[in-house]
Amino acid sequence: MIDLYTWNTPNGRKVSILLEELNVPYTAHAIDIATGAQMAPAFLAISPNNKIPAIRDQETGVTLMESGAILIYLAEKHGQFLPPEQRIEIYEWLMWQMAGFGPMLGQAHHFLKYNRGASDYAEERYGAEARRLYGVLDRRLEGRDYIVNDYSIADMACWPWVSRYEWQDIDLRDFPNVRRWYQAIAARPAVQCGYHVPDHVNEIPEG
Amino acid sequence: MIDLYTWNTPNGRKVSILLEELNVPYTAHAIDIATGAQMAPAFLAISPNNKIPAIRDQETGVTLMESGAILIYLAEKHGQFLPPEQRIEIYEWLMWQMAGFGPMLGQAHHFLKYNRGASDYAEERYGAEARRLYGVLDRRLEGRDYIVNDYSIADMACWPWVSRYEWQDIDLRDFPNVRRWYQAIAARPAVQCGYHVPDHVNEIPEG
Ligand SMILES: N[C@@H](CCC(=O)N[C@@H](CS)C(=O)NCC(=O)O)C(=O)O
Ligand SMILES: N[C@@H](CCC(=O)N[C@@H](CS)C(=O)NCC(=O)O)C(=O)O
Repeated sequence: MIDLYTWNTPNGRKVSILLEELNVPYTAHAIDIATGAQMAPAFLAISPNNKIPAIRDQETGVTLMESGAILIYLAEKHGQFLPPEQRIEIYEWLMWQMAGFGPMLGQAHHFLKYNRGASDYAEERYGAEARRLYGVLDRRLEGRDYIVNDYSIADMACWPWVSRYEWQDIDLRDFPNVRRWYQAIAARPAVQCGYHVPDHVNEIPEG
Repeated sequence: MIDLYTWNTPNGRKVSILLEELNVPYTAHAIDIATGAQMAPAFLAISPNNKIPAIRDQETGVTLMESGAILIYLAEKHGQFLPPEQRIEIYEWLMWQMAGFGPMLGQAHHFLKYNRGASDYAEERYGAEARRLYGVLDRRLEGRDYIVNDYSIADMACWPWVSRYEWQDIDLRDFPNVRRWYQAIAARPAVQCGYHVPDHVNEIPEG
């Protein structure tokens, strides 16, 4: 049994989607980051950076923070979505998501969605960076169904961030390869479950 | 032989430091990101996100972007700095560096060092986030010599970012565990070589 500490955000959904794809039993614990639940000492003990997602694996005793590390741990444990032949290439794109596509879109959310007007300079900076990153992903998906060969944890890491395209002032029609890939993944039953963890707060955007 | 495409930046230095620690033959190719060399088509073919570092392994034909993926690839290939028993915990802190400590300090460099005055709001935001992240690292290093047990790629990923503490308005004396760790790593011969790749542009800051 996996304990998943999460919230309805892109980084949280990466892990609930993988758990649904793996069909592994888990308990989702809601950590409401809007009310500061991520600062509770019991949570900090497993997530010292005070962020969701985090897990505890009751079988092995392992606790982990950082969605990218959790995806690797679970995919390895269950031998799925991280095939040995593509492992390094999947790491490459998982790192791209963790280091760029995630954090920079996170800044876009901060300035374009939550704090409009706080800084024109930053709105321009992160809006432009969002478009650049979507361009990189669109070129990568040209002639490919998934980011690396078959559906993998690299796709599961990127997809929930794309699902917030509206917050990023992105029109997916400008990125047709991303849009095709986004809609194909959105149609997966496991994604339709994992998206609504811990709560059903909205429908999956159509793309 | 490894071809390393790099520049004198924290992300580039992670890889040159690891290569020096491994004592592996490599050729450093300078990609001057100030003049746009990262946009050349030949470079984009191996680094589609137009960023350094990237490598080509002449033995295996593998090309890779994203410093975190490169560190894993090289550490695995040579069986050093990523011991099996600590692998997942090292991934956790490597991901923390890749997703948080790197990108957020990168924004601090942008607003506090290169574009002072562009946005008071962003200066405050990224200055505060830098201090928060140093606090997380300082607590992690309390009672530990290295981030995970022995010196590993998790340390090599974080150290070059700490070496730019001055750009981040950070006084390392406020973070005594980080400072001790920083100075111990700065004393390593391999770090003293790898820091000055591709060029010797300044001495290693004292800490
Ligand atoms: N690099 C981390 C980022 C996690 C993250 O940013 N989590 C956000 C929600 S998506 C959070 O918990 N924020 C609360 C806070 O920063 O206090 C990961 O991928 O797991
Ligand atoms: N997540 C990447 C980030 C690499 C990165 O930001 N590289 C910077 C220099 S430290 C760069 O090449 N910038 C040039 C550009 O963005 O055009 C990694 O860790 O390799």
